[in-house]
Amino acid sequence: MDLLSPSSSFADPHPRRSWWGWGAEDEALPDSECTALGALVPGAAETPLPVPGIADLDLPASRVAAPSALGHLMSDAPEERAGHTYGKAYRDVVRALYRDLRPAPDLVARPRSEREVTDVLDWASDADVAVVPYGAGSSVVGGVEYRAGLHRGVVSMDLTGLDRVLEIDRVSRAARIQAGVLGPALEDRLRPHGLTLRHFPQSFEFSTLGGWLATRAGGHYATLHTHIDDLVESLRVVTPAGVNESLRVPGSGAGPSPDRLFLGSEGTLGVITEAWMRLQDRPRHKASATVFFEGFDAALSAVRAISQSGLHPANCRLLDPGEAALAQVADGGRSALVLGVEAADRPVDGRLTELVELARDHGGLPAPTGGEGGDAAAGTWRSAFLRMPYLRDALARMSVISETFETACTWDRLPLLVDTARRALGATVRKATGAEAMVNCRLTHVYPDGAAPYFTVIAAARRGSEVAVWDDIKAAAIEVLGDLGATVTHHHAVGRDHRPGYDRQRPEPFALALRAAKQVLDPAGILNPGVLLDPADRPGTARGGSAPG
Amino acid sequence: MDLLSPSSSFADPHPRRSWWGWGAEDEALPDSECTALGALVPGAAETPLPVPGIADLDLPASRVAAPSALGHLMSDAPEERAGHTYGKAYRDVVRALYRDLRPAPDLVARPRSEREVTDVLDWASDADVAVVPYGAGSSVVGGVEYRAGLHRGVVSMDLTGLDRVLEIDRVSRAARIQAGVLGPALEDRLRPHGLTLRHFPQSFEFSTLGGWLATRAGGHYATLHTHIDDLVESLRVVTPAGVNESLRVPGSGAGPSPDRLFLGSEGTLGVITEAWMRLQDRPRHKASATVFFEGFDAALSAVRAISQSGLHPANCRLLDPGEAALAQVADGGRSALVLGVEAADRPVDGRLTELVELARDHGGLPAPTGGEGGDAAAGTWRSAFLRMPYLRDALARMSVISETFETACTWDRLPLLVDTARRALGATVRKATGAEAMVNCRLTHVYPDGAAPYFTVIAAARRGSEVAVWDDIKAAAIEVLGDLGATVTHHHAVGRDHRPGYDRQRPEPFALALRAAKQVLDPAGILNPGVLLDPADRPGTARGGSAPG
Repeated sequence: MDLLSPSSSFADPHPRRSWWGWGAEDEALPDSECTALGALVPGAAETPLPVPGIADLDLPASRVAAPSALGHLMSDAPEERAGHTYGKAYRDVVRALYRDLRPAPDLVARPRSEREVTDVLDWASDADVAVVPYGAGSSVVGGVEYRAGLHRGVVSMDLTGLDRVLEIDRVSRAARIQAGVLGPALEDRLRPHGLTLRHFPQSFEFSTLGGWLATRAGGHYATLHTHIDDLVESLRVVTPAGVNESLRVPGSGAGPSPDRLFLGSEGTLGVITEAWMRLQDRPRHKASATVFFEGFDAALSAVRAISQSGLHPANCRLLDPGEAALAQVADGGRSALVLGVEAADRPVDGRLTELVELARDHGGLPAPTGGEGGDAAAGTWRSAFLRMPYLRDALARMSVISETFETACTWDRLPLLVDTARRALGATVRKATGAEAMVNCRLTHVYPDGAAPYFTVIAAARRGSEVAVWDDIKAAAIEVLGDLGATVTHHHAVGRDHRPGYDRQRPEPFALALRAAKQVLDPAGILNPGVLLDPADRPGTARGGSAPG
Repeated sequence: MDLLSPSSSFADPHPRRSWWGWGAEDEALPDSECTALGALVPGAAETPLPVPGIADLDLPASRVAAPSALGHLMSDAPEERAGHTYGKAYRDVVRALYRDLRPAPDLVARPRSEREVTDVLDWASDADVAVVPYGAGSSVVGGVEYRAGLHRGVVSMDLTGLDRVLEIDRVSRAARIQAGVLGPALEDRLRPHGLTLRHFPQSFEFSTLGGWLATRAGGHYATLHTHIDDLVESLRVVTPAGVNESLRVPGSGAGPSPDRLFLGSEGTLGVITEAWMRLQDRPRHKASATVFFEGFDAALSAVRAISQSGLHPANCRLLDPGEAALAQVADGGRSALVLGVEAADRPVDGRLTELVELARDHGGLPAPTGGEGGDAAAGTWRSAFLRMPYLRDALARMSVISETFETACTWDRLPLLVDTARRALGATVRKATGAEAMVNCRLTHVYPDGAAPYFTVIAAARRGSEVAVWDDIKAAAIEVLGDLGATVTHHHAVGRDHRPGYDRQRPEPFALALRAAKQVLDPAGILNPGVLLDPADRPGTARGGSAPG
């Protein structure tokens, strides 16, 4: 997911989080709006699933108690355990609505210092308790849900207590930041210095720096610095085998990059506690424009030309006709390309003009420009974009599946991939539900050698079958991506849900190396078991066998 | 090292390589020019060291014979063994001149297919023979010189037989390329398609794609794509545990990047045989300018402003007064900043003007522009730059040390680093030789958060003491870099010579992970032992112990 540059702070800095659905509790759609939304989808249920109260949940009993030395930072309160059971995938929301909280962690730990992180890991390693590092829980791939069934207990380690900006180097435009800080709080702390990280995933309000790093999140920039990886100067990671702190330098060629082993490790090798991050001067010049295309193939050609031009727009989002209509950016079957450029210290209009000219060369028709700050369609799209996860939850309550998945592939195979995915997903939904699905596509990030398409599938399901249908769609998507040589994820991470595709695309020698690294860094096998690698029987514990898994 | 865009092919596509010194044999300076050059350095010898002939060398006897199945691709000919004994560091050249070829490999293998690479590794693993992957041998860090003394024999695996471009994807601007191709041959094969890799290290003529990848080489671009890492779509690596081929995609967030484990692995984890590389359209618009500064600190400020501007010049080389004078770009104690911009399809003059304006804002004085193609100083600098390694060899023959080292650090500590390094190196040379050294500095690559300074130390040594003095200088440099938190190498790799600094800066948990990866990918411990990691006693061999190292 990705977000077009929010320019001001968000309204409520401390919204009460929804334990079952996306974001802030009071932003969820009321029943009446759920019903109205469901009425737009043929085959949807007629009334919304009720939202259970915490008191109505039947949580499994906690199997482990906090040790006395760590009692002050651990809780087995039902609201804590329920809120940390799942991420925010469609299937997570649906299971919560159906009161299925079987995977609930036994305890939630909230360390407020690196020392406390170490203490929890030491205790858990000895006690055969799995630890699931948890930023703000926006995973859509089962990344924070324990499923291994092999440990004596499970602790969800909520890192939002580590939320400080520790140091700012204005000269080098960098800051040392604790990993548990949420997006808006981070930007609030950088703003007085004229600085910004400019990492704005769709989850921005409800995700943390550490989560972005552990999952190689994709952000604001549609070109160049697409993943957060490129914004990292150095990482500090607590592993059961010791603290890993990399040298803080702008670039290095000294052996394989230590940071690149931990970026994308999704909590399986250690807990990221701090990072030195590269920052930007806050942009004072921005311009955006929307260009319409009659055909999606022509639009793809335009985007390819732009991606290979060296003009590096900050935004370059292509919406297919369905996506453009949903976002109210275009109608009449046209595709829409939203372009944006920005700079701290010089005008950007010239660059925008060059970009629009390139799009026009490929058959694009620029929208009439709006008023101050550029183009109205870009703003419309942004609002719709931020609202999407709440609509997804409302649809979930109406038993309508709204699943997204994303990938990346080279330009030579992109048109085939988009067509094949549309057809395969349509057929899968037809087989599973008897009804037609809406399958939309947009490009979120583009590269000189390819792009990252993002698909949305909307389909009504029989009440009670939602998760099964979602799983069918996911399996079909993973198969199409694997068959066509596209990655199982461009920026949503692997978690547990993407394991089939990940295992297929990961080179086997690298899997050996990763498993070997895991064995030395996490010898007790407690860290986020089942993510990236199969959970290992843990030698040296009562229940562990001798064979590494 | 780095090179300002060569625009045409090099004169002789198949020069006879010097076995003892840099590059082409007939480009070495004749005795008379060596003597003249030495006369410019107080304390230099009066006559050049003679260049030994191959027939005069006293190579140690080969300890292993090629197995019959591999005999056709292996050789123990003296010219092969001598030419593959060392890289091209100053200390390598000096030892060759002194006829010290004790580390000579027993055999040189020249596989012509991936199958043959696998066969050699299989045989070597069984036979307890170390394998040193060898591109074109331009390492300046002891990367291709076996020193472990633990194996039954040593094979240098010369990969220049794998030199084909296998596939070109014009739409995605990428090509599948065998790892043993030399720079000029690669560019010759891409030129008819209007494409270029634009990776132009100073070693361009005498280094290979595989060598660039294995060492995370720095290239042409002074900003953005500074290392070859960013130009990689996917890698194919033969390891003793199997072939590692990563998915070819423009971007991915699926787990830690497999490629980033092999980039910088310097032949310790496997042999890179192929890569899909991202290419550029050949630039048709280029412009360059030189800006002079009275003070180096002002120049640094200008470069920092440029690096943070988002203008991304292709070239942005800052030469300090000594370096500028040596390259005949500036005199009178002025620093010189060489700026270059390029694009395939649109004029770049406007961007150059913006860059020069930024430099002027910080006290820069632009040179009067030259004729067609921009600025004369840039061309002058480029010629001097390409010629440098030959001059270094000529000085070596006059017992003058000419050592370079490079690093990177953040802007906040850069001025201190440059000053400290100058002082420490001056003191080291004074102590070792009693004479003054010339210590010059340039910036080769710049980032928004820092830069990569490159130092040259020139000092006369007593004949016979050259290597010892070089080692003193190297040790002092490594200490300064470590003390100030700068990387031991920005783009020259670690090899064996940088191990003290590398071991110091590498986080210990990452060292554990790397060692574990090595043990599963290269269980017999035959691949480039001593590089990045201590050579392990190899379990399961006659001489190996049971403890993994």
